[in-house]
Amino acid sequence: MKVDQLLTEKQFVDELNDIGEQLYHHKHPFHIRMHEGSLTPGQLRIWVRNRFYYQTILPIKDAIIVSKLPDSENRRQWIRRIIDQDGDGVSSGGIESWIRLGEGMAVARAEMLDVRLLGAVAKDAVDSYVDFCRERSWLEAVAASLTELFAPKLITDRMEVFKRHYAWIQPQALEYFFTRLKQAPRDSEHALRLVLANATNANEQRLVTYALRFKCRLLWRLLDGIEEDCRRETEYI
Amino acid sequence: MKVDQLLTEKQFVDELNDIGEQLYHHKHPFHIRMHEGSLTPGQLRIWVRNRFYYQTILPIKDAIIVSKLPDSENRRQWIRRIIDQDGDGVSSGGIESWIRLGEGMAVARAEMLDVRLLGAVAKDAVDSYVDFCRERSWLEAVAASLTELFAPKLITDRMEVFKRHYAWIQPQALEYFFTRLKQAPRDSEHALRLVLANATNANEQRLVTYALRFKCRLLWRLLDGIEEDCRRETEYI
Repeated sequence: MKVDQLLTEKQFVDELNDIGEQLYHHKHPFHIRMHEGSLTPGQLRIWVRNRFYYQTILPIKDAIIVSKLPDSENRRQWIRRIIDQDGDGVSSGGIESWIRLGEGMAVARAEMLDVRLLGAVAKDAVDSYVDFCRERSWLEAVAASLTELFAPKLITDRMEVFKRHYAWIQPQALEYFFTRLKQAPRDSEHALRLVLANATNANEQRLVTYALRFKCRLLWRLLDGIEEDCRRETEYI
Repeated sequence: MKVDQLLTEKQFVDELNDIGEQLYHHKHPFHIRMHEGSLTPGQLRIWVRNRFYYQTILPIKDAIIVSKLPDSENRRQWIRRIIDQDGDGVSSGGIESWIRLGEGMAVARAEMLDVRLLGAVAKDAVDSYVDFCRERSWLEAVAASLTELFAPKLITDRMEVFKRHYAWIQPQALEYFFTRLKQAPRDSEHALRLVLANATNANEQRLVTYALRFKCRLLWRLLDGIEEDCRRETEYI
């Protein structure tokens, strides 16, 4: 058995990027079909509905992380994520923007909020993120958020794809993605700084890589669930 | 055994106020001596040091509550407490103001932050608040915060007392209390609204009253621990 060795910062960051390149959901068959432009409106609607549940749990898992972070400065920075998602009382947040994305795809607000339409696989995958943040150390919970390192590239591509292949979606509905393009780099930069400063031995580095793999698998499973729902809908219609 | 009956809103609020009148720590012998002006500088320093630990856990228990609250609007309102305590990055928050209160009593910042000086009874009492919020429902955790209904009266009295009996404390060090006088009514008003809207049966009302009693006992135990430390210091000096 190979003994764990402490990676240099460069080796460690390279490993995190490798995990993203190999396991992030940009390679999932559903995303590949989405970006080829071959999804039907019905399939995109299943995606937007199921993915909404993920949006709703983000402030919950972020508040759990805030409750575990070691000091005021890091709590203050992490709280921005909750406000970004819930809104600050003046501007609407990510949850509301995602509802508008759904509306731009002709999914009514009430349908978006109807948990009975949520697939069981998608629900399990998303719930496991809250459980992970509750049960693990803040270092692991923060590390799980590092998929955001890979989000801007995927979102940038997606905005192009939506305009080109899915022009039936109202352009103003894409506000969510515009906003995330600004927020994700700021958030992942903070998370990476925290991880690099606090994963100071080989064991902690390994826990960080496991956490990032776990999160990639979770996003992958969410799309597996969405695919399953799409197949079921096709069979039954 | 008397069967639980649903209280009217007025009866319920009266019961909460009765609990405060009977069990809140304004009646603790240590507070009575503080407000009579009979504490020594050394005893006030023990108080300010031990009570600092309580200040440090408030954002933690509040983030746990945020992670459990049912919607964006309530999370947004509760987050203000965390920012009030940690500071917003421009103005300093309650934790920093409490350190300055200690400095105004000639307790050095380093001494305040030194956990080895924290009494075991005080630590247990304070830690039990975090555990309570983690393990119980959000309704009970929110109800435990309702001691803030009784705080403004005590703080108003204390500011008078400090100026009259403890003039050796630098007046600018009392900033913490000025700020709490503004924050506590806003916070307790939100918490009370949440509790009244969500304790809709006799069992929930009872859980709320138990939570408030628990919190009163916790504050009482904290002062018990402080008194014990004061006695020990006197014996050993």
